[in-house]
Amino acid sequence: MNAPDTSLATRLYLEDLVVGQSFRGGSIVVETDAIKRFAQEFDPQPFHLDETEARDSLFGALAASGWHTAAMTMRMLVDGELKLARGVIGAGGEIGWPRPTRPGDTLRVESEILEITPSRSKPDRGMVKVRTRTLNQQDEVVQDFTATLIAWRRPAA
Amino acid sequence: MNAPDTSLATRLYLEDLVVGQSFRGGSIVVETDAIKRFAQEFDPQPFHLDETEARDSLFGALAASGWHTAAMTMRMLVDGELKLARGVIGAGGEIGWPRPTRPGDTLRVESEILEITPSRSKPDRGMVKVRTRTLNQQDEVVQDFTATLIAWRRPAA
Repeated sequence: MNAPDTSLATRLYLEDLVVGQSFRGGSIVVETDAIKRFAQEFDPQPFHLDETEARDSLFGALAASGWHTAAMTMRMLVDGELKLARGVIGAGGEIGWPRPTRPGDTLRVESEILEITPSRSKPDRGMVKVRTRTLNQQDEVVQDFTATLIAWRRPAA
Repeated sequence: MNAPDTSLATRLYLEDLVVGQSFRGGSIVVETDAIKRFAQEFDPQPFHLDETEARDSLFGALAASGWHTAAMTMRMLVDGELKLARGVIGAGGEIGWPRPTRPGDTLRVESEILEITPSRSKPDRGMVKVRTRTLNQQDEVVQDFTATLIAWRRPAA
């Protein structure tokens, strides 16, 4: 995390967040089996399930479902530095997958705070726009997600 | 599907798609165990894992991870009527979760084509903007996702 005055030991409140602040997340090695298992349950299309069929698809080789990349990204966020008080809860956002996640990829996430908007109607909270990029071991972006998250004001002592 | 001239037995090409066309998907009953299993792997936060802790959270009761709702939505899409030739492949989109998915919910999806844009540089394909809403048994929207999908032109006979 860039901000020197924010202890990682403490959960982050609205007051701890600054536009431009960045956070690192955990890391995940993507196993072929995990790609196929996720696809079997949630996205059973040939290019996520079978190497041979994937070769003839747009992907050219086995590729993880974008939703698998999204789910792994969430896991890396939860395991990472952006430890918001009361949890990482998003209202939604914009998601893009510029290239696929491949078997054997080592993924990591980098988050940056783009905007902070205190709520006008609810004085105990604000909305924080956070861009999270998911990168592979070649520093290529496999997912770019800009989310609106809830951040809480620190309760009065 | 509304369009009377599109056979469900045939995969859909760019030429088969029309703005305003709508498609239904499959249906999923959301089990408590599935919510906790997904959360354990991808979004291990207390309000997705434990009923008691969820009670004191923003959600007020156990809630599925938004990424679980997204993954189940993909499954319902793949099982549904929007059977695009060469698969349902998205470049990204805008996602929102207006309310949480709860244990016991029966989810379904409704998709509608918003825009069709033939590619200028690649004459064999186009981009199709599709809005997919995920609804529970009370017809409440739990996810609203507008995606840009690839659609292929029918190959010459």
